[in-house]
Amino acid sequence: MYAAILAGGTGTRLWPRSREHLPKQMLDLVTDRTMLQETVHRVTPIIPVERIFVVTGRNYASLAREQLPELPPENVIVEPCGRSTAPCVGLAAVHILRRDPHAVMASLHADHAIRDAEGFRKALLAAGDVAQDGVLVTLGIQPAYPATGFGYIHRGEQVATSRGLPVFQVRRFVEKPPLPQAQAYLESGEYYWNSGIFIWKAATILEQMRLLLPDLHGQLMRIAAALDGPRASEVLEEVWREVRPVSIDVGVMERARQVLVLPLDVGWSDVGDWAALADLLPRDAQGNVVVRTTHVGLETTGTFIYGSERRLVATLGLKDLVIVDTGDVLLICPKDRTQDVRLLVERLREGGKEEYL
Amino acid sequence: MYAAILAGGTGTRLWPRSREHLPKQMLDLVTDRTMLQETVHRVTPIIPVERIFVVTGRNYASLAREQLPELPPENVIVEPCGRSTAPCVGLAAVHILRRDPHAVMASLHADHAIRDAEGFRKALLAAGDVAQDGVLVTLGIQPAYPATGFGYIHRGEQVATSRGLPVFQVRRFVEKPPLPQAQAYLESGEYYWNSGIFIWKAATILEQMRLLLPDLHGQLMRIAAALDGPRASEVLEEVWREVRPVSIDVGVMERARQVLVLPLDVGWSDVGDWAALADLLPRDAQGNVVVRTTHVGLETTGTFIYGSERRLVATLGLKDLVIVDTGDVLLICPKDRTQDVRLLVERLREGGKEEYL
Repeated sequence: MYAAILAGGTGTRLWPRSREHLPKQMLDLVTDRTMLQETVHRVTPIIPVERIFVVTGRNYASLAREQLPELPPENVIVEPCGRSTAPCVGLAAVHILRRDPHAVMASLHADHAIRDAEGFRKALLAAGDVAQDGVLVTLGIQPAYPATGFGYIHRGEQVATSRGLPVFQVRRFVEKPPLPQAQAYLESGEYYWNSGIFIWKAATILEQMRLLLPDLHGQLMRIAAALDGPRASEVLEEVWREVRPVSIDVGVMERARQVLVLPLDVGWSDVGDWAALADLLPRDAQGNVVVRTTHVGLETTGTFIYGSERRLVATLGLKDLVIVDTGDVLLICPKDRTQDVRLLVERLREGGKEEYL
Repeated sequence: MYAAILAGGTGTRLWPRSREHLPKQMLDLVTDRTMLQETVHRVTPIIPVERIFVVTGRNYASLAREQLPELPPENVIVEPCGRSTAPCVGLAAVHILRRDPHAVMASLHADHAIRDAEGFRKALLAAGDVAQDGVLVTLGIQPAYPATGFGYIHRGEQVATSRGLPVFQVRRFVEKPPLPQAQAYLESGEYYWNSGIFIWKAATILEQMRLLLPDLHGQLMRIAAALDGPRASEVLEEVWREVRPVSIDVGVMERARQVLVLPLDVGWSDVGDWAALADLLPRDAQGNVVVRTTHVGLETTGTFIYGSERRLVATLGLKDLVIVDTGDVLLICPKDRTQDVRLLVERLREGGKEEYL
């Protein structure tokens, strides 16, 4: 099995820790390793580093290579600019197919957290076995609550079992639902969160792109043809300028004839905002999560304090607040508003405060 | 007229800005001047600096002299240790009486803010005229709301007018009341907040101490007798060790036969906590008060942000919070809990975190 790790994201909901020059996947948020390092480390027991590819942007390539010294440098594939996930996955597939025409690849995100790495690897291997048959496979997350921030997968009938895990038909991919719908999905037991984790043969996904995204497929073939020649990076650059951004979900998964899904119940999180990060970290008796700082609190509960090393944080009478201190920026908001941190970042951008972005 | 400015306080409710080595009166909280400087500056149009005495503790004497270079250094009277306000006032009276046996003195606190300095000086002069007759005079603050954190003065009948201001008998000094009582006081129109500002002849207050606090009076006389000799500071030290702490309110004012009160309506504040300070500072359209920092806020109202210079404070969805950042400490609490900041300081003391006190 091969892995393609998508590491080009530039999200703003973990601002002010994540910055334009240092995005979430490059940060040590959940453990002492960065999320990218953790993502690689999670699969190396079943995928040797030579078979792990990281796709990222120009700005982050050297950082990715620094953080992953064990990875062959050429395994860091540099996108000239962001074109959403379908081109990115296609580019990785081109590189992988060149190594091995029969390769099965897992497409992973560099900024997800998974508690049970062993269970995750087991699911990957089970999905890999299924993918040998030339089908598109995804892992569906057992929903823990009626989330409105994720897309869902409506499963159909069970078609097989792989390494003890059930394999279902995908009936439909569903957009992020409003709350009542999300509640109905949760209760039905037939829906999974769309993890964005896919397993397929490199040849299979490229064939699907030929059928569903023929322009992109043609562009990828031009890149593939130049890959071993002296003009590889020039061709990539030229072609990429023309590539139309489209997500793998919209471009392929929602339109493919057949997709299979295996359930994944391993403590998955996309660490989508500060509240989600707080949920992953140990809390004290008052339900407070305190990271990298000294905290003295009175009547303070459910509060997440993410500090810079040498400052004392003193709180009194607080409930469910998020306090993030990065030295140059202090962010304070209620836990249930952390999704809107991106609005603050927009405000800063409008205000020309580039130094804080 | 003379002034005795009491500058020995060590309050903790403006922590973490106020510290053991740098108490509230030594800080530039309300204006660019420190509160002590402001207190001196407020009276110099009617009291020359040679007649202004500052009484403070050993730890703060050099700081007081530094902050008041225009004051004769010997006008900073150093208490060997804190003994509450009656001994402190008595000590100042001894010094003032030595200069002028007929002196009228105003006893002022170094950590009060007054918006209308002109009106304040007018009231001081009016009270000074009344005090010439050998009575105890105080200024009563027109209450702005049913405060439970101040003592009250119940006024009796009007006995005179001085410089256009009515002069009332004091019927009674009242302890800090519970809220319903405070509301009744406010509605009656007969009550003032006890400002702790007193005007009397130095001879009058010492005579009252002879009657009401004879031990203290004797001790003060021993100090007075040694004042011009070589053992002045030794005697002060010896005597002060024996002095019993007692406040001027409990020791004299509540027990004196006759006290007169003049109303004071000049925007007085004791700046008793962070919320009180916020009330004194200009607010923006959202009711936020932002001091010494850059603030970017979304849906943030009624919040007081007191920053350290170079940090950006970003807030989202906050209401009526206090955020104080002193560089080494970050304090966050609701505005209506700022009175309890002292509890945090106690907790730090118990926890041995001396470096933050």
